[in-house]
Amino acid sequence: MSKLENLNDLFLEELRDLYHAENQLLKALPEMEEAAHSADLKILFNDHRHQTATHVQRLEAIFESLEQPAKGKNCKAMKGLVAEAKQHIKEKAASPVKDASLIAAAQRVEHYEIAGYGTARTFATTLGYMDAADLLQQTLNEEGATNERLTALSQGLNVEAMVVPDFHIEK
Amino acid sequence: MSKLENLNDLFLEELRDLYHAENQLLKALPEMEEAAHSADLKILFNDHRHQTATHVQRLEAIFESLEQPAKGKNCKAMKGLVAEAKQHIKEKAASPVKDASLIAAAQRVEHYEIAGYGTARTFATTLGYMDAADLLQQTLNEEGATNERLTALSQGLNVEAMVVPDFHIEK
Repeated sequence: MSKLENLNDLFLEELRDLYHAENQLLKALPEMEEAAHSADLKILFNDHRHQTATHVQRLEAIFESLEQPAKGKNCKAMKGLVAEAKQHIKEKAASPVKDASLIAAAQRVEHYEIAGYGTARTFATTLGYMDAADLLQQTLNEEGATNERLTALSQGLNVEAMVVPDFHIEK
Repeated sequence: MSKLENLNDLFLEELRDLYHAENQLLKALPEMEEAAHSADLKILFNDHRHQTATHVQRLEAIFESLEQPAKGKNCKAMKGLVAEAKQHIKEKAASPVKDASLIAAAQRVEHYEIAGYGTARTFATTLGYMDAADLLQQTLNEEGATNERLTALSQGLNVEAMVVPDFHIEK
């Protein structure tokens, strides 16, 4: 087990957690896009896949600036979040209900990342890594914007999901 | 595997996920309190344990109003979050670094709950369960307030954790 002597050690651990989390998400997003019914939701997942690839690159740039190898640390929380999303992908559900469930899973993922990047950004600022703090803030803003897009999209879909004619149900 | 026919089914699934999540958190908080070094952080975890017990009761009241048994659904994400928090509890770390790591874990938990309760509250409103929506909003507000307390507490601790004299390190 690693020993954390100071905030710098903890900062590196946070970066490794986020790096693993983003790479797991990168693999899951195409499946979420495929499972979505609404065209808007498909577009959102596709957009976010491209953003996520950029988030991975930003983390790699930070590792490089710290002269550390870019490596992930097994992120059990994101594993659980992705497992829950996959469960929703497989679940039998009427189309708008399926979409509402995918949005619910995606918002949990976004909030996990908002918490993680918020922490990492604050550590970077405290440690005086201003370029890293700036990159982390950019990602944080994009995660926040994605979460807001998901909220907006859910409004219409939830009403649609409230009463679903039987023929919409995937058997 | 369950089949989700409409938003009501998904709402129940969300409530079961939150019920399991809160019950897991209720068990973990005393350990987090014990592992914390800062008196303020110990108080925060203790306060949040009492709040969490109330959150569980509110969910039980909602299940009752819906004439559904209060039961949890295995929440893999919270399992991962709790596993990460436990890893931080066990990790060798200088006191302020340990506290910073516990705050980082707790903020991830709070954000998970903020996402979950936000979704459930929106579903309840759409479905016209106004009393349930009100109870979920109360919990949502408390999770948000706890997250803000954690952010405020982290500021001072991070600076302390930046440079830690060797004798602070737990061997």
